[in-house]
Order: sequence, then C-alpha cells, then structure tokens
Amino acid sequence: MLFKITFLGTSGTIPSVERNSPAIFVQFGGQRMLFDCGEGTQRQMMIAKTGFRNLDNIFITHLHTDHFIGLFGLIETMSLNERSRELNVYSPRAEVLRALFEAFGYDQLNYDIRVRELKDGEEVKFDGFKVVAFRTEHIVKSVGYAIIENDRRGKFNREKAEKELGIPPGPLYAKLARGESIVWKGRTITPDMVLGEKRRGRKVVYTGDSRPTKRTVEIARNADILIHDASFKEELKDWAIESGHSTAKEAAEVAREANVKKLILTHISTRYSKDASPLLEEAKKVFENTIIAEDFMSLEVTFDES
Amino acid sequence: MLFKITFLGTSGTIPSVERNSPAIFVQFGGQRMLFDCGEGTQRQMMIAKTGFRNLDNIFITHLHTDHFIGLFGLIETMSLNERSRELNVYSPRAEVLRALFEAFGYDQLNYDIRVRELKDGEEVKFDGFKVVAFRTEHIVKSVGYAIIENDRRGKFNREKAEKELGIPPGPLYAKLARGESIVWKGRTITPDMVLGEKRRGRKVVYTGDSRPTKRTVEIARNADILIHDASFKEELKDWAIESGHSTAKEAAEVAREANVKKLILTHISTRYSKDASPLLEEAKKVFENTIIAEDFMSLEVTFDES
Repeated sequence: MLFKITFLGTSGTIPSVERNSPAIFVQFGGQRMLFDCGEGTQRQMMIAKTGFRNLDNIFITHLHTDHFIGLFGLIETMSLNERSRELNVYSPRAEVLRALFEAFGYDQLNYDIRVRELKDGEEVKFDGFKVVAFRTEHIVKSVGYAIIENDRRGKFNREKAEKELGIPPGPLYAKLARGESIVWKGRTITPDMVLGEKRRGRKVVYTGDSRPTKRTVEIARNADILIHDASFKEELKDWAIESGHSTAKEAAEVAREANVKKLILTHISTRYSKDASPLLEEAKKVFENTIIAEDFMSLEVTFDES
Repeated sequence: MLFKITFLGTSGTIPSVERNSPAIFVQFGGQRMLFDCGEGTQRQMMIAKTGFRNLDNIFITHLHTDHFIGLFGLIETMSLNERSRELNVYSPRAEVLRALFEAFGYDQLNYDIRVRELKDGEEVKFDGFKVVAFRTEHIVKSVGYAIIENDRRGKFNREKAEKELGIPPGPLYAKLARGESIVWKGRTITPDMVLGEKRRGRKVVYTGDSRPTKRTVEIARNADILIHDASFKEELKDWAIESGHSTAKEAAEVAREANVKKLILTHISTRYSKDASPLLEEAKKVFENTIIAEDFMSLEVTFDES
C-alpha cells in the first residue's frame, strides 16, 4: 500500500514567507489524513493537489491556534463542496473544539463532524494500519501520533513449497501467500509451513510540539520516520524548555535512542525559516540521517527489507 | 498624504491557488488598516511586506469565516512580536467576536483589543480622513466601509494676494495657505480672501459581500474607487441573490449610478479564479473603467484635479 507523507506547513508558531503553519498530509492506501491543520492548510492542499475527497480523519496534536485554526476554513470548504461523509477530528480537549464548532454552526453542515479525544495509548484502527496517540510534553495538553502499519506476513518460501512439499506453482501458492490453508494430496498445508516470519509494518511518528520525552523514544522505537519538533538550536535551549519545544540536538538524541531510520525536523522557528542549515548541522552531529521538513516536501515510506 | 490600497486576498468564499481569502491593506498617511482578514492574511502581509507595526485598526465587514478567521493568527503573531499598542477591531456582531476572543484567551495578551460595532453612518475619525460604516445586504449582518478624506483647502490664489491685496510673497503666503489669518498694513486678511473653494478629498468605498444597494450608490457617489463584490456572472444571478452577492454587471451598474472614477471587482468565485475576464467583460459593457482585483495588486489613490 502507498504510504506517503506531504508536509503542507513546517513553520513554528509564526508562519513566514517560506513556511506555512503546521500541517502534514498522509496518504495510506485509500485513507487520507491530516496531522494538524494550521492557518492556510486548505490552500496548501490545493497547491499540493492533495484533493479533499477521501480526507475523513484529522488528528490535532494540541489546541494552539497555529495547529488547528485551519480546520474552520477547511470544514466550510468541504461543506460547500457538498461533502456528505462523516469527518472525524481527534484532538486533546475535545470539549473545547466541540464548543467552537457549535459556535460556528457546524451542527448545521451537510455532513457530521465527530470530535474525539484520544488518550495516551488509545488508537484508531484502519485497513492495514492504526494511528496511536501518545503523551507529549508541551505547555498545554498535547499528544503526538504514531502511524503503525500492521505486521505483514512473512515471505513465501517458494523453494520449500515446491521442493520439500511438492506443491506445484499456481493458484495454491497464492492462497497460501494470502494466509489460507490448502489441502494437497490429502494433506493439509497451513500458511506457516511456507511463510517466513512476520515482517514488521512501517511506522511513522509525529510529535507535534513537545519537549523530548521517554515516551516518544518508546513509541518511535525502530520507526521508519520520526518527525520531531526542532524549533530551536541548542543555544536557545532555555527558551525551548520554557515554551515546551525541542532543540535540534534534543530531537536527534530522541532519534538515536529510538533507533529510527530517518529523522525529519519540523516546527522551524522564523529565525531559521530561510536557512535551516544550523538546525540540520546540529542534529547531524548526533544523528546522521536527518533532514529538514520543507513546505510541499513529499516522501514515500517504503518497506525496509533489511 | 500617501493613500495606498493593497489587495491581500481576492477570492470568494473558497480560496484558490491563485487567490487568498478576502483582505485589503490600506495605508493612509501614517495609518495602516485592514479591511477584512480572511485565512492566511498574516502570511499575505509578510509576502507583501506591509509590516505589522502601525496596524491599529481592522475593519471586518461580516462574521463569515472567510472574512475574519485570519484575525486569530494575526493577533497572536502581533502578541509574539511584543506589540503593546491597543488594537481596534470593528465588526458587526461585536459581541460574538468578543466572546471568541475571550475563548482564545485574548484578554491575557500583552496588548488590549477593543472590539467595536459600527452602525450605518457611524464613523471613526483619523488624522485627515475618516472611515464610515454603511449598511450592506448580505445573508448575515454586514456593513461596508467608506474611507473618506477630509476636504482639502482651496488653491492659493497668488495673483489675488500679490496684485489685488499687495501682500509680498514669503512667510505670510504660507500662513494664509495653512488657513491662518494675517495682518498686513493694519488690515486683517482672512484665508478665504486668497484661497479658492475647498477641494473634495479622496474616497474609496469597499462593499464586502453584498447585493447591489441604493445605500452603496449613495455613499460611493463620485468616489475615486469603488471595490465591489462581483462573485458571479449575470448568468448566475439567481445564485447571487440567494447567497447575498452581486454579479459583475450589478457591480458595474452601481459604479455607473454612483459616478465613481474606477470600479474594482473582487470576491471572485473559484469558477473565475484563474481567468476572470468573463467578469471583466460583463462589467465593462456597463462601466468602462473597471479592473479585476488580483492578490498583491497595489494602487495609489491620487488626487483628482479635474
């Protein structure tokens, strides 16, 4: 299944000419999801040509304006586009969002909006993957989200099927590969007899705004991609602590400890908006495979067959 | 005094790749004002390099999301930029905006926000000009705004001063031109003796979202610029009526009846976002001096000495 991430906004609290407010668009198979929805997200979606149609789930990390105010325009545009499918919005302090939606008259739209709160460890299941909320550490109630693909079946051992078990190549192989048992010459062949060990699915973790935490290290363990708050350089660590953000170095330390494959730094302060290389250099000293998120940067998350 | 208009957003209800949500930035002398503040306005201001510093007055035409949701990000950015000056926000249904600002914690910012409602004919006076609210006709409570410069003194009649009254050129002329009386050879010379008739100041009128109205014609009489809702072509007039907007032809009829100098069509529906020439052609048949507003289009309003 296609698993693709598109950064729609990579700025810190204040947007800039180069960077729009936070939003990440994720396509996983037929599902389209948003993680955060800062001001101007709907227009970023138009520019990135993501489409609005299959977007049924929006995950908000916390209720700071730069992470959620784009919901209003997006919700109204989808209504004017004659959406009828229910929209799920996940957010800490769901009651606040519900009250705002009611104040904006969203109980009168041509589709329903379901606002739900996910606590640490709670998950939303989709076809082939799930989204798990995890506790983060910001100056208001906040969560991060881990997108975790289901384990995949092991590789089909063709040699064993053909030579040891004597099953002829063809439709029987397909059945076994799909996880179904077959009967061959009176003997029941179960999938585990020809399939290797289950392979771990893909995993992408997004912190939203947060200090570095043990919980992030834990949930990001061996992830393909960790998207981490890296608002500042280490020289502004005091300010990072006070404002509930991370430095590039701290983000890299989380990535290293969690043994992720790739680290993407985001929530870039206006100081580094044009040239984020100081953040990149700082992080790379700790964790080599680091990149800086840029608006409209798109990545496909591929299977790691190592 | 410099009187300059910059369009920051010219879209209809739904923004597009080409057009951001409604907002017009106006510089008049030392004053900087916003008229409407749709989603993404603060970033449009950054791109247009308008600055945030002297922006003390924001005029909202009505509380539809596409006309005011940009206030939140802008207000917070100005707070993070350590603004201390009071900000005035004018809007219909001020109580709704006040409640929202309170919900967003804006009573805790480092500057005060004063939300005020202006009824038809009520005005805010500035140095050299005033902004007058006028009743418009939309599907919710709405007003338009007229920016009206004070009358200017008449031209100094040098010939009369020198030849008829025998006053020597020099500092006395300057005093008279400033509107002060002087005494020359025992005789009091009042400014009206050497100044021509008062000259009308400049005038720009912005309707926001509205059907064409007699009130707009009245307040826009002889205006230098009329910025009028022109969401649709005449073929969608039924829809314009139902949604409380105007067609390009209707906007042009208002311009013609009001005898304005220039008509600028805005609030361009997504249908015409890339190519608004159908709207332009329709309007020009009725009123020749018409242009289409485009994002970042900037015009200086000059004195008409005719």
